[in-house]
Amino acid sequence: MRDAFHDDLDAIGLSLVEMSELVSKAMLRATKAILEADLALAEEVISEDERIDQLHHDLDARTLNLMARQQPVAGDLRTLVTSIRMSSDLERMGDLAHHIAKLARMRYPACAVPPELVFIIQEMGDVAQKIINKTTGIITSRDTLAAIELEKDDDDMDKLHRKLFEILLDDNWSHGIETAIDMTLLGRYYERCADHAVSVARRVYFLVTGTYASDIL
Amino acid sequence: MRDAFHDDLDAIGLSLVEMSELVSKAMLRATKAILEADLALAEEVISEDERIDQLHHDLDARTLNLMARQQPVAGDLRTLVTSIRMSSDLERMGDLAHHIAKLARMRYPACAVPPELVFIIQEMGDVAQKIINKTTGIITSRDTLAAIELEKDDDDMDKLHRKLFEILLDDNWSHGIETAIDMTLLGRYYERCADHAVSVARRVYFLVTGTYASDIL
Repeated sequence: MRDAFHDDLDAIGLSLVEMSELVSKAMLRATKAILEADLALAEEVISEDERIDQLHHDLDARTLNLMARQQPVAGDLRTLVTSIRMSSDLERMGDLAHHIAKLARMRYPACAVPPELVFIIQEMGDVAQKIINKTTGIITSRDTLAAIELEKDDDDMDKLHRKLFEILLDDNWSHGIETAIDMTLLGRYYERCADHAVSVARRVYFLVTGTYASDIL
Repeated sequence: MRDAFHDDLDAIGLSLVEMSELVSKAMLRATKAILEADLALAEEVISEDERIDQLHHDLDARTLNLMARQQPVAGDLRTLVTSIRMSSDLERMGDLAHHIAKLARMRYPACAVPPELVFIIQEMGDVAQKIINKTTGIITSRDTLAAIELEKDDDDMDKLHRKLFEILLDDNWSHGIETAIDMTLLGRYYERCADHAVSVARRVYFLVTGTYASDIL
């Protein structure tokens, strides 16, 4: 009986990895869609977000079911509760990729991102990608050191976010209010996505150590 | 033993209500602080967010501890898992009030909100307040009908949010890019706060019925 339980537990871990991989793919495509005004790609990201939502829904139901049936003890219980929280973060990250794709679609056939911001948005997309992929690795490896180090990548995102505002507020800004609003929201989507990824990594830290990473930083 | 357990369960419910009341107070004050450029009030909201974070932290630890010690069955287990999720939403709502207060502080002694937006920001603040207070009531009453009706209040918030963008994009807008960026973020804080409150209400619905409100809407 305990073996079947641990198989179920492993399956939940694999679903989290699958969600994280789907989020990574969605974010990669959303960035490409908004930088290249690629409507077909934006539509793909928008429709595939349902798959992430479905995985989130299924994973939560399976986790609750497993808790109810198996009455897991300390370590396993922590794994299950943490899985539910990680699943929420990943679902929200999927939503943010979806928001980026929707912005690409809303401005199509124009490109939502003006030429002088292409570089920084690409960088924000790259950092988001790097953070999500590291998070996927951390879910698998449960590497607490890597989980702590992820905060540094998040600092890079915050720096890019500030730099974005500097460009928007520069006297040379010539793209008007609408584009400034779009870019403010776009910047926030990337920044929040990175925050949620860091949150997933912190939850892995908690899972392994039983303490919060914030208590030691 | 079961009685002590249900006392602990009740105490967790009361902590959620306390969090929700603190969030309501924080949001009320944050709105007043940003509309009246009240630095002292903004500072209060900023420092009191720590109390919400602490409650969130404590509530999660108590819930996990209770799960591990008592091995609760179906209904009680659902209550505990749902409590952890509601606590996350409420903590995030506190963060959003904190963001609003920080924006008030950043622009002080100027008022962050230009005169022609005071009315709509006040309305967004009022709707947020109404939604949070209803959510507090729903946590206590477990009224599933009220939980579903909250979606209507959220529609009001979405309408205000769209109206805000209309004003920002109007040709008469004379406050430049920086204020447009501030107001874009401010609008998003209120909108996200309402979304999280709706999420708390949906979790109450799930808690009582075992099904998701989204499945019946």
